[in-house]
Amino acid sequence: MPNPTAAMLVIGDEILSGRTRDSNTNHLAKSLTAAGIDLKEARVVGDEKATIIAAVQALAKAYDNVFTSGGIGPTHDDITADCIAAAFGRSIDVREDARAILAAHYDKAGTELNAARLRMARIPDGAALIDNPVSAAPGFTLDNVHVMAGVPAVFEAMVASILPTLTGGDPLISDTLRVERGEGDLAGPLGVVAERYPLLSLGSYPFQKDGIYGANLVVRGQDAGMVEAAMADLRASFA
Amino acid sequence: MPNPTAAMLVIGDEILSGRTRDSNTNHLAKSLTAAGIDLKEARVVGDEKATIIAAVQALAKAYDNVFTSGGIGPTHDDITADCIAAAFGRSIDVREDARAILAAHYDKAGTELNAARLRMARIPDGAALIDNPVSAAPGFTLDNVHVMAGVPAVFEAMVASILPTLTGGDPLISDTLRVERGEGDLAGPLGVVAERYPLLSLGSYPFQKDGIYGANLVVRGQDAGMVEAAMADLRASFA
Repeated sequence: MPNPTAAMLVIGDEILSGRTRDSNTNHLAKSLTAAGIDLKEARVVGDEKATIIAAVQALAKAYDNVFTSGGIGPTHDDITADCIAAAFGRSIDVREDARAILAAHYDKAGTELNAARLRMARIPDGAALIDNPVSAAPGFTLDNVHVMAGVPAVFEAMVASILPTLTGGDPLISDTLRVERGEGDLAGPLGVVAERYPLLSLGSYPFQKDGIYGANLVVRGQDAGMVEAAMADLRASFA
Repeated sequence: MPNPTAAMLVIGDEILSGRTRDSNTNHLAKSLTAAGIDLKEARVVGDEKATIIAAVQALAKAYDNVFTSGGIGPTHDDITADCIAAAFGRSIDVREDARAILAAHYDKAGTELNAARLRMARIPDGAALIDNPVSAAPGFTLDNVHVMAGVPAVFEAMVASILPTLTGGDPLISDTLRVERGEGDLAGPLGVVAERYPLLSLGSYPFQKDGIYGANLVVRGQDAGMVEAAMADLRASFA
């Protein structure tokens, strides 16, 4: 059976302007690979309602799981929760369970749960909350879309909260052979081995550093024995 | 007149598996912001022909410029050039001008221009070459799609080659006010200023480090006077 699939949707003008470097996609990619869920696509879109809704609908339809990051804070540009509700035709309002989590958190901190902070308790109808052990304000899952914060520490904590609840497949196994030859010399033999193992993915990632150049040849697949056999073939090709 | 728009398409299984961290999107984002071209979307897809073709067609239709990175090397998994040709219904073959560039480069290095390396001279019909001062093998522009290498040093050199040839708009001006207060306290006054300047984009980017927390409030727009006025309003709000 093929592994479940996933897409990542990063939401935020600050990524597209270059001000902020997205690290959440790489964290999610590694986590999903280990869990046996295949990340098939990642997208970054800005803080525009129509764009976010269209992306959520397209990705939710195409993949088993969608993970979003960004846009669930207290400020006026945090519009993700409303967009997710709109994408699924659900109503959205401050929800009592989310409000109670925020009230307990801010009460302990001696901070007022004002109107802005209360925005973070706006949860689409029918969504399940995602625990946020870092800063309390919850994420949520609606249908197959998991909505999480953009701040990396919070995003990573939410991924850890949600991943064990998802159905995974066989983890992707990968092995690497480093060969110090030009990629143009590796390509022929590598292609021969790749054709021999149609169920595996063989990739070549060139490097050049301090005058030494070559490529990392990476074999990926779900069958450990097959990965090992392909690695042996590669080692023999470049002995 | 609104600025020209752009999308980035990152191609490569290694990004989606988490093995490699994409840095090209952030580099392009900064370069486009400085050139007055609005990066509206970024996507990452794997090394699958149908997926790449569909993404290229969707992005080329939706935006003024599309930039791709990855998949133009000599190995069997480098299928980007063929996918771009297919996306535009063009034929593709080894082209003499590209072959001559590779021949000169490898001749100088005393390296054989073998069949694998010759793959890098496969250029779709009607495309214009993009200069590669790092490792010779050219990128190309077909219609509104600029096809570049995935290796960051080469990608960045190609962006520098192609950017001066594109029509830019007014560069995006941005200014930042750092405020050491909780985002929930900033949100109200920030929203008031944001409503006052509908032509500007105001964003809030929280930080928390060494026990100090707050947010960077970023004002972005094309009119320097307007950005300055909004910054003055923000400073007055948080004085």
